Amino acid sequence: MRVLQLRAYDGRSESLTIADVPDPRPGPGEVLVRVAASPINPSDLAFLSGRYGFTKPLPAIPGFEGSGTVIDAGPGLMSRYLKGKRVACTTADPKIAGGTWAEYVVTSAQLCIPLSKKVSLDQAAMMLVNPISAWAMVDEARRAGDRAIVQTAAASALGRMVIRLGKRFNLRVINVVRRPEQVELLKHEGSEHVLNSADPNFDAELKTLARQLGATIALDAVAGELTARVLRAQPKKSRVLVYGALSMAAVQADPSSLVFEEKRVEGFWVSAWLARQTFLSKLRLARRIQSLLATDLKSEVRAKVPLEKAVDAIQEYAKDMTAGKILITP
Amino acid sequence: MRVLQLRAYDGRSESLTIADVPDPRPGPGEVLVRVAASPINPSDLAFLSGRYGFTKPLPAIPGFEGSGTVIDAGPGLMSRYLKGKRVACTTADPKIAGGTWAEYVVTSAQLCIPLSKKVSLDQAAMMLVNPISAWAMVDEARRAGDRAIVQTAAASALGRMVIRLGKRFNLRVINVVRRPEQVELLKHEGSEHVLNSADPNFDAELKTLARQLGATIALDAVAGELTARVLRAQPKKSRVLVYGALSMAAVQADPSSLVFEEKRVEGFWVSAWLARQTFLSKLRLARRIQSLLATDLKSEVRAKVPLEKAVDAIQEYAKDMTAGKILITP
Repeated sequence: MRVLQLRAYDGRSESLTIADVPDPRPGPGEVLVRVAASPINPSDLAFLSGRYGFTKPLPAIPGFEGSGTVIDAGPGLMSRYLKGKRVACTTADPKIAGGTWAEYVVTSAQLCIPLSKKVSLDQAAMMLVNPISAWAMVDEARRAGDRAIVQTAAASALGRMVIRLGKRFNLRVINVVRRPEQVELLKHEGSEHVLNSADPNFDAELKTLARQLGATIALDAVAGELTARVLRAQPKKSRVLVYGALSMAAVQADPSSLVFEEKRVEGFWVSAWLARQTFLSKLRLARRIQSLLATDLKSEVRAKVPLEKAVDAIQEYAKDMTAGKILITP
Repeated sequence: MRVLQLRAYDGRSESLTIADVPDPRPGPGEVLVRVAASPINPSDLAFLSGRYGFTKPLPAIPGFEGSGTVIDAGPGLMSRYLKGKRVACTTADPKIAGGTWAEYVVTSAQLCIPLSKKVSLDQAAMMLVNPISAWAMVDEARRAGDRAIVQTAAASALGRMVIRLGKRFNLRVINVVRRPEQVELLKHEGSEHVLNSADPNFDAELKTLARQLGATIALDAVAGELTARVLRAQPKKSRVLVYGALSMAAVQADPSSLVFEEKRVEGFWVSAWLARQTFLSKLRLARRIQSLLATDLKSEVRAKVPLEKAVDAIQEYAKDMTAGKILITP
């Protein structure tokens, strides 16, 4: 089969090439999926440059999520049940050798969700990473009784899902972006509170808003100094959930925010969150996510490219991650 | 009365002078304490340079804790009860105007603890800030079921209390210091695990030890990059409690520690912790702390100086905070 092969975790495009490798075969509890579509996500870029939570033995096949049809199954109840079905699946697990930027992928049946008829393979390809992260973090805020959310990288696919879920569940969202055109975009889409962190009075405005609306939770995909600025602006006893590090810098926090204002900094990782859910709540979640996939949890698609054009597409995506997803269609 | 008066939050010794001010008078629920002794703590140094959690209107009287005798009381059950008694008291509260680096201080009766006969006024002067912080953080570790603790600034007065409480409660303590002579000092006092963060293989050694002993909680008084190094070394799902910032730098944390290893960074502030305790548990705590004041919770005293020599003493203390406390005896 044809795959995109990663030869070094250095983030250079020369380290990615098209290759022909033997078709993988599903073991016990595993399924073989013929990949229909797979997006490029910020987490994929982190993986390519060795900044993700784990690496896989080189040469590796990247691609953390995708959609397709199960065409073979190893022994096991769940795997056999999935045979012939359309699924969304993920390989974002160090125990899974393969990736979705390939014609075929073998993954655990546990990491697949069978699709309802009304869900398209394109939207399903982007179902696991962003929609579940957005859902889980908003759910976290609702359970904790937070009244409002501050989020950085608010113009991202995930950020816009958080905005829509916030509307649905009556949680105010204060959106932090880094460019004026992103302010325009989000305001145009109906967001009330959008701040540009490059503005000179950003910190004062964020502080006023965050305290006024009671934004005791923040979702941060940027890290670096911005985490400290957000934490400083929030009311007492607030917390930041860091789920990405687009700045590629260490998370910062003022000691006085932590000590005297009783704030805290945590991480959020969708895989760890999923692992904490019961089987039943995973089923409910799968149903709920699919029912919102055409509305709140929709991802914009900017282009669809074959495997052969994926390397250029990755570069293009890295340059502007807010202009919609690029789908690889092997 | 004679007091040490702070004229600017700039950390310069010229901003501190001896002054004569009118004697303060206790209002409702307050007591007037004739100060016997008051230590210089790292939190006082932070207050002097405006780095503490709050400031008081200038000119201010610094000094966050001390011991003495209640010689007058305002209306109120608790305040009248304390009249004539020896107490330990604190003024580390933005609502209290005065400080303990003075002949007399007015504070809330709620912020005083009556002393048992066997406790000396010298040890009682240092009873509220360090012993309660050490006790509270070790208690936090015990309640959470942590098996071992990493602590930075381990040679401080508080650090050595944590070491002794760890022995008492069967919690292993990994001590991080910044100078070779502090390694010697703590080993000489019987600590098994002492690491110097300036050593080239510090990070590797800390990681091995922290994972081997299961040090899922860290107590950090240094902040800056050291917080990130400690967090990185700890096992998964660990946390750091930041309670000071001796490095005067922002707390740092690797995004991957937070996200993929589910670690978190919190603050610890003794005033906030105390405010969360019930009246009954405060009483129990006062009894327990006093019973350990001659052993586990003992502070070494390097010198006792009158108010007139306090400014020099503060400078001397700031130069070497591990050589024992300096008590001001107004």
